[in-house]
Amino acid sequence: MRELGLTIDKIIAGDVRTASRVISFAENEDARAAHILKALFAHTGRAKVIGITGAPGSGKSTLTDKLAKEMRRRDKKVGIVAVDPTSPFTGGAILGDRIRMSSLATDPGVFIRSMGTRGQLGGLAKNTMSAVRILDAFGCDYIFIETVGVGQSEVDIIKLADLVLIVNVPGLGDDIQAIKAGLMEIGDIMVVNKADKEGADRLVIELETMLDFRGEQEGLRPPVLRTIAQDGEGVPTLCDQIDIHFEHNQKIGLLEKRRRRNLRLEVENLLLDRFTRRMRQVITAADEMDNLTESLYNRETDPYTVAETLGESMKLP
Amino acid sequence: MRELGLTIDKIIAGDVRTASRVISFAENEDARAAHILKALFAHTGRAKVIGITGAPGSGKSTLTDKLAKEMRRRDKKVGIVAVDPTSPFTGGAILGDRIRMSSLATDPGVFIRSMGTRGQLGGLAKNTMSAVRILDAFGCDYIFIETVGVGQSEVDIIKLADLVLIVNVPGLGDDIQAIKAGLMEIGDIMVVNKADKEGADRLVIELETMLDFRGEQEGLRPPVLRTIAQDGEGVPTLCDQIDIHFEHNQKIGLLEKRRRRNLRLEVENLLLDRFTRRMRQVITAADEMDNLTESLYNRETDPYTVAETLGESMKLP
Repeated sequence: MRELGLTIDKIIAGDVRTASRVISFAENEDARAAHILKALFAHTGRAKVIGITGAPGSGKSTLTDKLAKEMRRRDKKVGIVAVDPTSPFTGGAILGDRIRMSSLATDPGVFIRSMGTRGQLGGLAKNTMSAVRILDAFGCDYIFIETVGVGQSEVDIIKLADLVLIVNVPGLGDDIQAIKAGLMEIGDIMVVNKADKEGADRLVIELETMLDFRGEQEGLRPPVLRTIAQDGEGVPTLCDQIDIHFEHNQKIGLLEKRRRRNLRLEVENLLLDRFTRRMRQVITAADEMDNLTESLYNRETDPYTVAETLGESMKLP
Repeated sequence: MRELGLTIDKIIAGDVRTASRVISFAENEDARAAHILKALFAHTGRAKVIGITGAPGSGKSTLTDKLAKEMRRRDKKVGIVAVDPTSPFTGGAILGDRIRMSSLATDPGVFIRSMGTRGQLGGLAKNTMSAVRILDAFGCDYIFIETVGVGQSEVDIIKLADLVLIVNVPGLGDDIQAIKAGLMEIGDIMVVNKADKEGADRLVIELETMLDFRGEQEGLRPPVLRTIAQDGEGVPTLCDQIDIHFEHNQKIGLLEKRRRRNLRLEVENLLLDRFTRRMRQVITAADEMDNLTESLYNRETDPYTVAETLGESMKLP
């Protein structure tokens, strides 16, 4: 108990090693994480959490680094949580140790962490949320969550972040073009990165047109901003826009509304996680599971009936 | 009951309209779907199910179309299930009506269907599995599941398919390069599409090298095959390889092993789905949920404690 209090105090005091260790506990599903996160929760809610997403190859990582640098210049403490797709076999993060790539690694005012998504269920949500919360208590003013890929995790980002940036880039294929349309709906700020590349002007027009057709939504119309992340061009303006959005959303109550919604979704996610563990235990322990699989394979029963039977034996309400 | 029997008979007889209607039932979570799928299950297990995945822009759709065409030439009946990322707001598939794009639309021996992923939980798995099963009973010899994106859904494809094709393409960015490493592990056959583009040779060498370092796995070493899907080049060889893999995996028992595993995972997925619905009901009905959210927002309690309390009130075992 005293140790728990000490850990909390250290995180709040901004002790990097303690924060890192607790994030690892959370990632490894170490039982200690739950106690610490419970106790930390009261010390959170201050950080501005910004989700950054977009197609692969759009330069998200570079842009995130430059955003962090600019926020540091403004004397803000910054956290970066980079979500990597996790290998389904090794469980390791595919993109590897992002820290080595970053020019921010030596700045004590920036905390960078790569997280694997781990398995199918709420992987992004649960571990990333834990990391964000720890960085929040740790005293970060801004926390950037960067996600890779164009799958469901992109869409899930709205459940974790206060504000969402969509990074676009000229000259990608049709698949990505189409996916963009989906991401439009969740973006608060549209970025056209690599704005010096051919097709950037057309992309800006396209995005503006898509925004014209976007349904009525709360908050400011998303601005379309040009950046060249490599050179830092457009990054200060982007930081200004982030602040403008936070200010506006706070004023109209949208920030609070989103945070309430996200807390609710987090509870759902934790419940699901609990259930999943329990289910896996039941299924693994079920003597009859091998027989059931056998019957399924031989088409003597069907998966729907088996799920019903197991659900009842688990006293699923 | 008589109507159910009639529906089953029609699907087995290869009636397109009935098959389409039942897939729509499944997609819309219509109660009729469950009964039909239960009854259909006994008539499934014959089709060869092939997952096709890879980075956006790799030309998966074109390749899938050409594979279908080649299989038609070989007098096989073909199904294509194209999984689209679903808009989190409208619920509609983002990539739109794929049928219009396909040159196969007029061939009665090919059944093409686009599916949205719908929400976070097992969206891919459940609806896609339903569609695959219906097409299996419908008499398709080969069913191609094509997924878009590089998120979790790519990795989930192994839970649905007998065999997985990874489509690679020269000249993509670093993000994608890294993701490829993750996909390597789940691929049975590697395709280098757009093989006439610069960098194709290097990509083939890279992939071969990555395969050298891949851990010991059951089945054949994945071949790296060149295609130019646009012109159909390399597609007959790819079809041959698909058949070779099926034959080999059947002989060594790997096909059966995967199918058993997938049936088991499907049961898990159905259980989770059941639980999620129940949980949403409880949460929506909970008078106290608004109060709980309020307490959470004010940091008077924490999400972990709330989830525990709700879990107990739901008699979660």
